[in-house]
Parts: sequence; structure tokens; C-alpha cells
Amino acid sequence: MENYEPLVPPRSPQTPQACGRSPDENSINGDVEGYVRLRNPHLAKLSSDHLYHLALSTTTHCLADMFGDVKFVCMGGTPSRMEQFARLAKQELDLKLPTGTDLCDLSHYAGRYSMYKVGPLLSISHGMGAPSLSILLHEVFKLLHYARCRDVLVFRVGTSGGVGVPPGSVVVSTGAVNGLLREELDMHVLGKLVSRPAKLDIQLAEEIAAEARRSLSGVNVVLGKTLCADDFYEGQARLDGAFCDYTDQEKQQFLEKLQSVGVVNIEMEATLFAAMCHHAGIKGAVVCVTLLDRLKGDQITTPKSVMSEWQLHPQQVVLRFIRHRLAKTPSAP
Amino acid sequence: MENYEPLVPPRSPQTPQACGRSPDENSINGDVEGYVRLRNPHLAKLSSDHLYHLALSTTTHCLADMFGDVKFVCMGGTPSRMEQFARLAKQELDLKLPTGTDLCDLSHYAGRYSMYKVGPLLSISHGMGAPSLSILLHEVFKLLHYARCRDVLVFRVGTSGGVGVPPGSVVVSTGAVNGLLREELDMHVLGKLVSRPAKLDIQLAEEIAAEARRSLSGVNVVLGKTLCADDFYEGQARLDGAFCDYTDQEKQQFLEKLQSVGVVNIEMEATLFAAMCHHAGIKGAVVCVTLLDRLKGDQITTPKSVMSEWQLHPQQVVLRFIRHRLAKTPSAP
Repeated sequence: MENYEPLVPPRSPQTPQACGRSPDENSINGDVEGYVRLRNPHLAKLSSDHLYHLALSTTTHCLADMFGDVKFVCMGGTPSRMEQFARLAKQELDLKLPTGTDLCDLSHYAGRYSMYKVGPLLSISHGMGAPSLSILLHEVFKLLHYARCRDVLVFRVGTSGGVGVPPGSVVVSTGAVNGLLREELDMHVLGKLVSRPAKLDIQLAEEIAAEARRSLSGVNVVLGKTLCADDFYEGQARLDGAFCDYTDQEKQQFLEKLQSVGVVNIEMEATLFAAMCHHAGIKGAVVCVTLLDRLKGDQITTPKSVMSEWQLHPQQVVLRFIRHRLAKTPSAP
Repeated sequence: MENYEPLVPPRSPQTPQACGRSPDENSINGDVEGYVRLRNPHLAKLSSDHLYHLALSTTTHCLADMFGDVKFVCMGGTPSRMEQFARLAKQELDLKLPTGTDLCDLSHYAGRYSMYKVGPLLSISHGMGAPSLSILLHEVFKLLHYARCRDVLVFRVGTSGGVGVPPGSVVVSTGAVNGLLREELDMHVLGKLVSRPAKLDIQLAEEIAAEARRSLSGVNVVLGKTLCADDFYEGQARLDGAFCDYTDQEKQQFLEKLQSVGVVNIEMEATLFAAMCHHAGIKGAVVCVTLLDRLKGDQITTPKSVMSEWQLHPQQVVLRFIRHRLAKTPSAP
């Protein structure tokens, strides 16, 4: 029963001092090119930082030793898919594990997310919706900072509903809009509304799409904007939720409006992902397969075997890009 | 590998006809006292309804046979905690399973939520944050409707940060406010802002608290309002996220403002839960343990063994209430 295990098992015997860094050295190092920009002056005052939802801590883990070589962080909804992704990465990037070892879930003890490390790549589940991803990104950014990682790229590898693209397509997002069709993340901080720009790196998106088109056959790769909804049903204009106050015609008009502003798919995390990466000065990309064309329906009825095949597509697209990047610049992405 | 299993395994051999109900009978039955009110006229036109994230369907499962006796739906964040809750319910409610059987995760094949059924009780994990809970509630409400359940009570059994109450206390929410301190849920539907009242049943909350105080010793039970945030860090006025733009003093002022309007704890699902239950005409309660007092700090550093003990408190509070309710009216809650 994981609930009865110690929260932070001492996987590494080193003290923070042995790692060559005490947590109070955590200045905001955004001015140094390539590092994660932690915009929080209070962190410098912490004597230790417990990354609660990851079951890691600066006191009990030597994060620089464990994660210092990370260059790619890949995130997706479910634990099983991200374990599958880590295993596919091992194969595609031709990485070897020592005989007698296997990948293990580094955040198992927290019971929230699953995290796998394979070479320079982290593969982490983020659950569903922006708030769940938000917690993870706060803690992953702090982890990358404490581990002194540099030039890290972050990817969301997910599923989505397509808007006017054939099911099974892979959308590499060039922008992310919220439910009011604005490219921003709206948050409530200390009782007030705060908006942050939800900007993605278009050049990175184009590079990912170009490499996929060059090296992967049989996968339709699309560049376009993504609508980020806070709900699967009413927030995505579905007619089949427990509640629905609009007509079929109003739904169709909304989906056509999405098309007119360049939206090609709908999911539930893109604006949060874009805004947090942008705020931290990290390059990120959202790469999602479409499981249906929402212009033609709401229910996902494709057989599981076909969907499992489709869900591999965005994983393959991201891994081809990473392989290409590693081949070009072996020491840094 | 669950990804390669069929999405909707035919657990029940009956056709929908054999269940005595075809999906197109799904009228909005909100006018009948005690039933779930599905406010969606489109559902009547569906020939079948696939509850995608639960791995259940009206075509392949006889939902009335499987779930018709459900009277209590209990939900909480993590799969492990909700399995633990189901096992505790079995014990506390003195329910027996046939020899040679054990509880199993009914939604395993979808890879999203975990769902256990023990007698009249469902125990389901909902992940973190309002959007994740929203998907679950849409599908659970439809499930209760198709299964013709009546007089169902819904509980969120969770963890939270306390505001001015000792860690380990159990808060039974009398109201839920959003990040702007309003008792409402703000949603984006078809590109427009929609607000719904986030009202909880105060009488139910008081009954739960009274029964816990009567029958459970050693647990501090508090009635009060709950702040629902969309983030664990900035949204909850923490100083230890990756980003923080406010001072310690501004944080303290905000927490004191929360106290002044009657807020005693902070979590990430209460307004969504309250608004959806209210909209569906279902009585619901939010019962959360506090893991720390936010007036005194941000980091959760309590040992896992103590937290595991504390996390049992809201489970015990809810189960004492259910036991009491079943003893009073054995045939209906």
C-alpha cells in the first residue's frame, strides 16, 4: 500500500552539501541563457524545498546528480501512456539500461503523477486539465532549476478532438487559445484576475512538423492553433454531456468559428502549458493526435486497437524530432 | 498493457433491450423527485452512449443491472486512496463479497479514473483540479441516470490546506467560493462566459458534522467555507512555486481576508463539485482533511505516516454518516 510508505524515500545518500549546492543558493537565474527562469525571489529563503507531488526533495535527493543531464521533458495525460512513451524513447534513441535494471516510476510514492527517466529524457503523466498540469509544471521547473539543467525542451504529447482534420492526424500547435478564443491564460491570484500570454515557439513547432514529414510515412502532420477547454463536454461544444443548453446549429457555428480563426484541434491543457513555458523562458511544444473530427460528431467510438495505434503517432513525431536534434548537436539540443 | 485491451470489454452479456431500457428512452427526468436531472435534450437522440473515460457504454453494459442499487458516490483525488476508501467502506458498512472475489477497478480499461463498487457505494478517483472532476461528474451523472438510481448522495473526500484550523482537522464545507471569492462556477461555453451558482446543501453538511462529532472521537470537525483554486501555488497564495509576484505580507493579507469571509480551507475542486451537483439536482458534500495551516506556512512536511492517518479522517467521517443513514432508512438514504 503506497500510502504507508515514507513520502520521500532516500534514493540518494548524498546530503545537499554533497551535491555542491544548498537550496538557499536558488537565486533567480533567468539572466543566464538557457536556464529555467524561476520568477520567485522567495525561493532563495527556503532551507529546503519539498516537491510534494513528485515525491522529491532538495534535502533527501541529490537532484543535480539524478537529473542534471535532462534535456527533454515529455508530458502526457495517463501514466500508462507515459510509461509506454519512455519505453519507446529507449528504443528509438537506442539507449541502454544496465543489465538487471528496468525503468521505474520515480514519483510513485506521491501517488499523483508517474515519472520515468531514460537518458536525457523525462516522461511524466500530467492527468487531465490545466490545474493538474499546472502543479506538475511548477514542480518540474523547480526540479530543472535545482538540477541545473540547461537548454531543456518541454513537450506535451496528448490526445485531442480535431476540427476539420481527419482522425489520426497529428497537430503540432502554433498557438493556444482559451475558451474566449484569446491567446492567454487567465488565473486568479490573491483574489484578482491575472492574464499571461499563452505563446508557443512557432519555429520549434515548424521544425517538429518538418522532421516528421521528412522521416515518418503514413502520419498526417498538421500545423495550427489549439483550443484549450476546461471541460470535455460543454467547454468543447459537445451535445452529449450531462448538461447542454445550446442547439446543434449553435454548436456547428461555434466549431466553424474556431476553424475561421485557425483552430484545428481542441484539448484541455495547451494555454496553461504555453503560458507557463513562456513565463519560465523555456521552449515548449504541444503535439496531439486527433481522435475524431468534431465537425462530424462528439462520441469517440473508434476501436481501442486503432486508437492505440493513433496514440503512438504524436510520440513518434516527438521522438523523431529529439533523435534528429541529438544527432545534430550531440552535447546539447 | 492496458492500451491494447478492447476499450469496452463486454462485462455483461445483456443487450440494452435485455436491460429493459433502450438509450433513446433517456428523457430529461428531472421532474421526478429523487432522480438525477440531466439537463440535456440531445441525449434522447443518442442510439447509444459511450461513457468514454469510465470504459462503460449503454450498448455493451447493462448499467441498470450493474449500478441500479447505488445510493452513495464518493470521490477523491488519487486511485490508491479511493481503493483504500472502498475497502474501508466494506469493513465499516459490514458488507460481504462472495468467496473467491475481490474488488476490482471497473474503469481500468480507460486508463483515466479508478472506480470501485462495494454494495450501494461507488468509490472513484477524480484526479486533480476542476476540469478533471468535471469530466467524471458528467459521466457519473449519466451513469446514474441510465442505471435509474434514485436519491443518490455524492461526496468529495479529499485533502486541503487549512486556514486557521489545526492540521488534521476535517472540514465539512458549507459553501464554496472561487478565486474571486464568489460562490459560483465560471465556465466558457461556445466562446462566452457562463456562471452557475456553486451551492452546497448546508443541512447535509450539518448532519455529516453532527454524526461525526457524536460517533468519532479524536477528530476535530469544522463547518465552514472552502476556497476552490485552479492551481496549488499562485492560486493558493503560496510563496514556494516556480513563480511568485507578491510579497509575504500580501499573501498574509489575502489569507486573513479569506478568514474574514468564513473560509476555513483551500482545495481545487469545490466550486465545480457544488455547481454541478446543484445543476443536476443532486445533494452533495465536500469533506476534506487539512494537511497544514496555511497561516503558518506553505510546504507540506508532515511525515507520511501521520498524513496517512489524517487522510483516513474524512473517509471515516463520510462512512459514519453513511452508516447512520443506512441504519435510519435501510431501503433509501
